[in-house]
Amino acid sequence: MQVLPRSALFLRRFSALATIRRTPVVHKLVEKTNHLLVSDNVRSYASVKSDEAEKAKTTAATLKDTIGQPTIFSKIIDKSIPADIVYEDDLCLAFKDLQPTAPVHILVIPKKIIPGISYADPDDQQVLGHLLLVAKKVAEQQNISKDGYRIVINNGMHGCQSIYHLHLHLIGGRQLNWPAG
Amino acid sequence: MQVLPRSALFLRRFSALATIRRTPVVHKLVEKTNHLLVSDNVRSYASVKSDEAEKAKTTAATLKDTIGQPTIFSKIIDKSIPADIVYEDDLCLAFKDLQPTAPVHILVIPKKIIPGISYADPDDQQVLGHLLLVAKKVAEQQNISKDGYRIVINNGMHGCQSIYHLHLHLIGGRQLNWPAG
Repeated sequence: MQVLPRSALFLRRFSALATIRRTPVVHKLVEKTNHLLVSDNVRSYASVKSDEAEKAKTTAATLKDTIGQPTIFSKIIDKSIPADIVYEDDLCLAFKDLQPTAPVHILVIPKKIIPGISYADPDDQQVLGHLLLVAKKVAEQQNISKDGYRIVINNGMHGCQSIYHLHLHLIGGRQLNWPAG
Repeated sequence: MQVLPRSALFLRRFSALATIRRTPVVHKLVEKTNHLLVSDNVRSYASVKSDEAEKAKTTAATLKDTIGQPTIFSKIIDKSIPADIVYEDDLCLAFKDLQPTAPVHILVIPKKIIPGISYADPDDQQVLGHLLLVAKKVAEQQNISKDGYRIVINNGMHGCQSIYHLHLHLIGGRQLNWPAG
C-alpha cells in the first residue's frame, strides 16, 4: 500500500470533493442540502464543523515544519485545483467556502503567502486594507450588504485556523448569532 | 418625568456602568465574575449577550437618521467617557469590551468615523490595514498570540452590529468555537 503524507491525502480528498461538487447534478444537490441546513438554525452547521477546534489543535502542533510553505490555497490561486471563484484581482482571490456555515460563505485571500494575521508585517498594510475592501465589495455582489454580514479572521489554535494562508471569512445570508464562537 | 431619547438613555447607562466598573473593588469583582463565566463554555456568554441580534435589528431600523453621526465610541475617543484603553495612536484606539465574550475581548476602532466596513471607501485602505496590524500587535501585548485568537467585524443587522462606528473585535484567551455565530 502506498503511504502518502497527511497533506497529500488531504489535498487528494479536497481536490476530489471539489471536482465532484462541480458536477452539475451533484452541485444542485449540494446547494439544496446547504439550503436545508441553513434554513433553520446554526446547530446544523455546528454538527458539520464540530471538529474544527480539534483539527486546529492538530494542525498547530505540526506547524513549525510547514509554516510559510504553499497550502491548498496556493493550488486554488494557480488554478491547479478548482474552486468557485467569485472575485479576482492582482492582489487577491475570493471563492466559496467548501463547508459553508451560512447561505453566503466566501473566503478572501491574498495571493501572497501570509500564513496568518499574526504573521503580517507593516509592509502588508496595503494588502490587508485591500482584503477588507474586497470583502465589502463581494458582499455587495452577493446581495448580503443590505441585511448585513460578518467578517471573521481565525488565527492559530484558539481561533480555529486550519489552513495557514491568511483568509477572511465573509459570512451572511442569515441572522448571525453572538458570541462569534 | 423627563423623557430622554433612547440614545441618551443608553449613553447614561453605559457611562454609569463604565464608572462603576472602574471602582477598584467592583472592577475586581467584575474580573472575577468574567473569569468564572469564561472558565467552562460559551453558553454563559450566550446568556449574557443573548439579545444582541434583537438589539441589532432595532438599531438597524432607526439607522437612516443617525448614520455617520458620533456614537458612544466618539466619547471614548475624546475621553469624555472612560474606557480601559490598551493601545492608542494617531489613527486608532483599542479598549476592553464592556461585555467580554472571552478572557481577552478588545475593540479596535479608527478615530475617523466610518460607520461600518460597508461604509468604507478606497481612501480608507491605509487605515483598514492599520487596524488589522494594530489588532495583531495588541494580541501580542495581551499574550494571546501564541495560542491564537479571532478577529471579528460585524456589519449591519445580520452581523449583529449595534454601534455604527467601525470596530474590530479581538477575541481570545479561550478555545473559540466554530461556526463563528
